[in-house]
Amino acid sequence: MNMLTDALHIPDTQSTRDHRHLAIQRVGIKDVRYPLALRVAGQVQPTAGLWSLDVALPAEQKGTHMSRFLAWLDALALSGEALDAAGLRTRHAAMLDKLGATEGRIEAAFSFFLRKRAPVSGVQSLLDYQGRFVAETRAGQTTVFSEVAVPVKTLCPCSKEISDYGAHNQRSRVTLRVETLQPVEWHELVRFAEDEASSEIWPMLKRADEKWVTEHAYENPKFVEDLVRDVALRLNADARIGRYSVDVENFESIHNHSAYARIERG
Amino acid sequence: MNMLTDALHIPDTQSTRDHRHLAIQRVGIKDVRYPLALRVAGQVQPTAGLWSLDVALPAEQKGTHMSRFLAWLDALALSGEALDAAGLRTRHAAMLDKLGATEGRIEAAFSFFLRKRAPVSGVQSLLDYQGRFVAETRAGQTTVFSEVAVPVKTLCPCSKEISDYGAHNQRSRVTLRVETLQPVEWHELVRFAEDEASSEIWPMLKRADEKWVTEHAYENPKFVEDLVRDVALRLNADARIGRYSVDVENFESIHNHSAYARIERG
Amino acid sequence: MNMLTDALHIPDTQSTRDHRHLAIQRVGIKDVRYPLALRVAGQVQPTAGLWSLDVALPAEQKGTHMSRFLAWLDALALSGEALDAAGLRTRHAAMLDKLGATEGRIEAAFSFFLRKRAPVSGVQSLLDYQGRFVAETRAGQTTVFSEVAVPVKTLCPCSKEISDYGAHNQRSRVTLRVETLQPVEWHELVRFAEDEASSEIWPMLKRADEKWVTEHAYENPKFVEDLVRDVALRLNADARIGRYSVDVENFESIHNHSAYARIERG
Amino acid sequence: MNMLTDALHIPDTQSTRDHRHLAIQRVGIKDVRYPLALRVAGQVQPTAGLWSLDVALPAEQKGTHMSRFLAWLDALALSGEALDAAGLRTRHAAMLDKLGATEGRIEAAFSFFLRKRAPVSGVQSLLDYQGRFVAETRAGQTTVFSEVAVPVKTLCPCSKEISDYGAHNQRSRVTLRVETLQPVEWHELVRFAEDEASSEIWPMLKRADEKWVTEHAYENPKFVEDLVRDVALRLNADARIGRYSVDVENFESIHNHSAYARIERG
Repeated sequence: MNMLTDALHIPDTQSTRDHRHLAIQRVGIKDVRYPLALRVAGQVQPTAGLWSLDVALPAEQKGTHMSRFLAWLDALALSGEALDAAGLRTRHAAMLDKLGATEGRIEAAFSFFLRKRAPVSGVQSLLDYQGRFVAETRAGQTTVFSEVAVPVKTLCPCSKEISDYGAHNQRSRVTLRVETLQPVEWHELVRFAEDEASSEIWPMLKRADEKWVTEHAYENPKFVEDLVRDVALRLNADARIGRYSVDVENFESIHNHSAYARIERG
Repeated sequence: MNMLTDALHIPDTQSTRDHRHLAIQRVGIKDVRYPLALRVAGQVQPTAGLWSLDVALPAEQKGTHMSRFLAWLDALALSGEALDAAGLRTRHAAMLDKLGATEGRIEAAFSFFLRKRAPVSGVQSLLDYQGRFVAETRAGQTTVFSEVAVPVKTLCPCSKEISDYGAHNQRSRVTLRVETLQPVEWHELVRFAEDEASSEIWPMLKRADEKWVTEHAYENPKFVEDLVRDVALRLNADARIGRYSVDVENFESIHNHSAYARIERG
Repeated sequence: MNMLTDALHIPDTQSTRDHRHLAIQRVGIKDVRYPLALRVAGQVQPTAGLWSLDVALPAEQKGTHMSRFLAWLDALALSGEALDAAGLRTRHAAMLDKLGATEGRIEAAFSFFLRKRAPVSGVQSLLDYQGRFVAETRAGQTTVFSEVAVPVKTLCPCSKEISDYGAHNQRSRVTLRVETLQPVEWHELVRFAEDEASSEIWPMLKRADEKWVTEHAYENPKFVEDLVRDVALRLNADARIGRYSVDVENFESIHNHSAYARIERG
Repeated sequence: MNMLTDALHIPDTQSTRDHRHLAIQRVGIKDVRYPLALRVAGQVQPTAGLWSLDVALPAEQKGTHMSRFLAWLDALALSGEALDAAGLRTRHAAMLDKLGATEGRIEAAFSFFLRKRAPVSGVQSLLDYQGRFVAETRAGQTTVFSEVAVPVKTLCPCSKEISDYGAHNQRSRVTLRVETLQPVEWHELVRFAEDEASSEIWPMLKRADEKWVTEHAYENPKFVEDLVRDVALRLNADARIGRYSVDVENFESIHNHSAYARIERG
């Protein structure tokens, strides 16, 4: 968008000086859908990201150059690079450089799949997970967070203990957002949540599997408080994990609202 | 928007003739939020509707008069009228008249509340339901549908039968859309769904209530097929109900997707 | 899910007889995310579909076999087949066969991308579109609809005519749902909408392009009624198109609601 | 939920000690819909809030008492109190007390209406705004934020300058979240956004109004950067405002994504 590349030499209003003496912490584009490749369980998986890209703008600068964010996205898409936390860190620096900014932020939300085997029958199917990358540079420090939302099953310990038979249970969503000090694979993050739930879940189950899931959940009742703590303990025990947050939301089957808990570190 | 009321006598482009010889089945406004009063359980309940209003446009007419839909909405809001199916039928005719149309459609989605008493402790709280009105005139016939989406609990009969203990259960949503030949109250429609579920649900429950809900659901297992049929049987048995549809969606606790069933009549 | 494949010989509750004498028009799974490949502009494009699959259930049958829908989805994903309307018709018949049903429905919603060149600078970027397949068999007839929602720009003719300068304009969405009697490519469907809008839009624009889009839209003002008619005329002129609907929604920049129009044929 | 009030003396699992030594920053209920009254422009306006309520849980405590959050909500609804920032502060303290917690958080999202007069014709209609309250206590400090999302119109200065005629414009959303040191009315917050946009918007406009809005916006072009700064300057000039954030999102009419900017203070 500089004068050399703009064939018509149209005035570049955005590059003039601003006189309001107010810096802008974030300015850019929001909710643009663009392709993205991930490395999942050893294979490259194509997906589409919902991207938001922005930079900080100094007080004296009138505007940013919006089309450069798209150029950054298109270069990534054309490269075919399977993005991971390390690659995002490098590309994030390139974005700041391209925009002439010292601070900025990249967020991409996407879905990915893992092939799962049902616990008894062994039938296979693909479960979808919602992933997210957040890379941010503030005051010279860059952090990259990897997030995954994992659907699981929880069964209520109180309901089990006080009832003569049965126990209410429901679908829950465990969302882990972690800063990785060493590489951690998506399927590893997923396991932190699935291992600690009353039961993990599968898209395709035969009756023998359904029996297993039902009984397994009944044997592993967890309050929302239990699940958030148990997942946090797993993260605490892994030296590759830096700062993190764990959110658990139970879509209660006895209410029309959710039970919710959150632990964060750092 | 006619010449007499438009102070500046600005040309009225919309009223000119169109030469494409194509009638438009629906033209109007969509997703406008406007206040609405309902009569619920004998009391007037204020709420806000998400409204879509449209009319059919003959082939020779260039456009409709969008501001008249808003005038219709504002007149309803100012009237303070608690809208029911009969009142909507009258107002729908007035809208067609105001727009000079012979066919048209009104849709309003809103939430409302019912005060419920927990089954054992008797503690009271307000459960929210999603309601909807649809009034439509085509070929000289006007139909008014009242819809309500009711959150309930379902427990899987298969899981109960094959498992040594427990049974998977989940929150479900039963959506009834009915043409009422005689007046039917919102709380009556809600009961058709709540009575037939494995258990109805409440916002506030004490432990004694939670025990009751857990055991009651375990004693009343229902497949999605069972629930949709049992609610349809209830509607079939009520002479005030004309055409209807019943949709049931179970937010399965053992999957990341829903089980779904639908029965419609007429 | 029959006895031979179910290792534990667990009772199959779903296959027993039902005594309520009520057929179910639709029963199946809803909102399951599963991979999908499309053929777009001559290339295979991977994406993810949000699928809903269901069948009709006769009055005497207690339930359907939910896991078979997942087996159908997984077979499609493993095949690598790039799905088009003809392929969906074949696979739809296979689904009915697998479920032992004579009527049923498949719906898949997905996003796809087209590479576009900006009108003056020629810079390239990927625009996202929301596609959908709907295949349905009722009373022995199978129809397959292909749908695409196309984001475009509309500029108001009334505002242009009555104002001394400027004219309000906004993002609009044109949704075409067509039954194709002969193959029609996704990018052809998209052109029906983009050609008739006040202007098509692009993700990446340089200033020379922005000037072009601004002036092009100002020269092509369209009411919501104009756009829906002009797109319908295009479909009417194409012998490959059978039944269709066209919906146009303008996210008005002078209101907090949309203007809306719909034409359907057949 | 203690032993004295629970008639059946059912074991209270939640009150036992936890041995994982992990505090939980937030635990409670999420996305419960409950009625709410607001004071808007001098009148009490009934609405419905989407509420999330949570408290911090010390490491040694096993769980919180979920039903008490509902009791708090129901007491507020029954009181008929028109909630404002000061009232929320008082009720927030009562919630912490009721839950035996030293830290916690309340969030409520709701819509409200303001009656507006069109700029030339004077016709009146109700515009909807999305409001939100956030009250939070951490480390002995309580802050209450009031938020409102205001729909407005923006017109692009670059497009106006480089084009021979016209300028692209679009609906935008300005979201102000402010800590109020002195009372500030909802309609005052709204004015901060509406006054600074290229133009404010109305639900009902006659042609003379449409001409006014079109020309007024053309005379007041604003980049997303301009609007976020101009609203921030207004907040800076008002001594009643403490910490704040301003977000502006332009739903670009020349793209399928948004332009976005944010300024925050404190």
